Amino acid sequence: MNSPADFHDGFRDDFHDLRHHGDAEVRDGRLTDLAVNVRAGTPPVWLRERIAESLLSLAAYPDGRAAREAVAARHGLPVERVLLTAGAAEAFVLLARGLRASRPVVVHPQFTEPEAALRDAGHAVERVLLRAEDGFRLDPALVPESADLVIVGNPTNPTSVLHPADDLARLARPGRILVVDEAFMDAVPGEPEALAPRTDVPGLVVLRSLTKTWGLAGLRIGYVLAAPETIADLERAQPLWPVATPALAAAEACMSPRALAEAGAAADRIAADRAHLLAGLAEFDEVRTVTEAEGPFVLVRIERADEVRGRLRTLGFAARRGDTFPGLDRHWLRLAVRDRPTTNRFLQALDQALTGVGATAVRG
Amino acid sequence: MNSPADFHDGFRDDFHDLRHHGDAEVRDGRLTDLAVNVRAGTPPVWLRERIAESLLSLAAYPDGRAAREAVAARHGLPVERVLLTAGAAEAFVLLARGLRASRPVVVHPQFTEPEAALRDAGHAVERVLLRAEDGFRLDPALVPESADLVIVGNPTNPTSVLHPADDLARLARPGRILVVDEAFMDAVPGEPEALAPRTDVPGLVVLRSLTKTWGLAGLRIGYVLAAPETIADLERAQPLWPVATPALAAAEACMSPRALAEAGAAADRIAADRAHLLAGLAEFDEVRTVTEAEGPFVLVRIERADEVRGRLRTLGFAARRGDTFPGLDRHWLRLAVRDRPTTNRFLQALDQALTGVGATAVRG
Repeated sequence: MNSPADFHDGFRDDFHDLRHHGDAEVRDGRLTDLAVNVRAGTPPVWLRERIAESLLSLAAYPDGRAAREAVAARHGLPVERVLLTAGAAEAFVLLARGLRASRPVVVHPQFTEPEAALRDAGHAVERVLLRAEDGFRLDPALVPESADLVIVGNPTNPTSVLHPADDLARLARPGRILVVDEAFMDAVPGEPEALAPRTDVPGLVVLRSLTKTWGLAGLRIGYVLAAPETIADLERAQPLWPVATPALAAAEACMSPRALAEAGAAADRIAADRAHLLAGLAEFDEVRTVTEAEGPFVLVRIERADEVRGRLRTLGFAARRGDTFPGLDRHWLRLAVRDRPTTNRFLQALDQALTGVGATAVRG
Repeated sequence: MNSPADFHDGFRDDFHDLRHHGDAEVRDGRLTDLAVNVRAGTPPVWLRERIAESLLSLAAYPDGRAAREAVAARHGLPVERVLLTAGAAEAFVLLARGLRASRPVVVHPQFTEPEAALRDAGHAVERVLLRAEDGFRLDPALVPESADLVIVGNPTNPTSVLHPADDLARLARPGRILVVDEAFMDAVPGEPEALAPRTDVPGLVVLRSLTKTWGLAGLRIGYVLAAPETIADLERAQPLWPVATPALAAAEACMSPRALAEAGAAADRIAADRAHLLAGLAEFDEVRTVTEAEGPFVLVRIERADEVRGRLRTLGFAARRGDTFPGLDRHWLRLAVRDRPTTNRFLQALDQALTGVGATAVRG
């Protein structure tokens, strides 16, 4: 609620404000948004209309059965393996509070909410830091053998690295919960490395979000796929009626074959737009990119990126600061993949920001 | 999510299914609903339109600042004393998981979610049972002196008893959190016993809901008023972005002077409709009512009410079973206050159900 950072001062470690999120970088501004990883032009009109229809039954308490069945059917799973949540953010709280874990480990750099939720719940959290020199690729050997809760993103926010499904599955152990945050997986064409429907990986918990592809950040809707007993544990930590009626309507609608086809086409477009962005970035000597990017954003290293980001803001563009992610520092920025015209305008602005020219002119 | 009872078998004590709620009694049916305490004919069109407008900004993450300020202004409090929640149900989970309590006490009969949430979070919960012989009036002496978390409803669901604010305030102690669930207070004309804006009662936590008066059960919106440090503790247990954009829009709209006037008029109408219902019930020798009812529902005692309730269903009316509330048993029913024509039809059906006549005819 409000600016979460206001009330979470306990969640700054020495270097990283874990409660900083991209939405704070575009709020109250008129900047072109490359900071928030929500697909532009969403939600589509047909989806907004479906949600609007649901407003006719607001007086009744939410009934999540149809949406749960739709999600289960989309993944070919029984409903007992599905839990709808008020966004992936709620799922992290449920994991932190609803499961027993004595040695939780978070693989960084990644979305900071899982660690923040664990620490909020009183856990001591260990970090595994993937390294820029390794292209932020997963090294399973870095994860302590006795970790009984491991959280990793795929594709990872903010690195955009897509880990092989088999590497992730190899992190599973008896007595360990392995959480794979697939919030951005539906932006990867064909989802080749998805663990989502797998039932053969012990302790696997997959998180999914409908926020990014469908532009439903304001609606709070996501889901968890896991073994029935884990789902029951998480559900016990949920409030009654945890997902609102409009969000349930959206979840059901987004599981339709038409919606899945639309998401697939969007993923193809994102891949092409990302290639254009990466090609443009490659023109700059000062910019190093994590080239194996597979998500709808790319992570870039620029000396003194924080200052470049400030100049980009005066030029009308919001980029996501990298320094709030454990494992990164002031020399990193995350950029959302946008359409070609937007990217072209951004690349021009970046050129100005890097040379330090132009910012002053616009400012004046 | 789904039928909560499916996954909460741990929450049946010997006699009471704490996870049973009135919505299960009207779901999938075509019964006239006297089981769910949501005001009929809601949400009003103007409010639904305001909510629909908010769908235009779903792609952005929720920004709760304006709604929080509106709630604070309505109660004349600083924003640091206000927390918006995904319904009162979320507030109960936050209380159970976000605060430290070694001896929580729940005053029954009352809404069962607070106890269920506490037990879900691993607390042993003590019950104070108010007695029918005393008209379910609060006896502060029943609350153990060392209780450090006390939860009481006002007006109380399902008894409809309105406790004097001063009696409740006398339950406050240094080191004790006193939770007063005022989810139905806005249905009491003038709210004479509200503790909501009080800042002079140590440890006071007041819960409010917008669900019942405004017909927003499907939207999940309520709020907590408490001291800033308690609000901060509760917020720390919340997921990021806990309240969706449509719910925030509704909360802000319901705080306007126009909305408050409409709620006041609705409260007056409920009082008149309740008097009509109570007068009608007084005609039956078999029915004993808790006459000091001040909420939008009344609690009645009828010998073998469970069987009467079954006959009412065949006659087209859903009443709320009483036996799932600690302190009550199969001989109790809760009836929502409806408009005169609905009540008149219900009273006719009750007459048939009590004599056992007619049910068979309709059934056939």
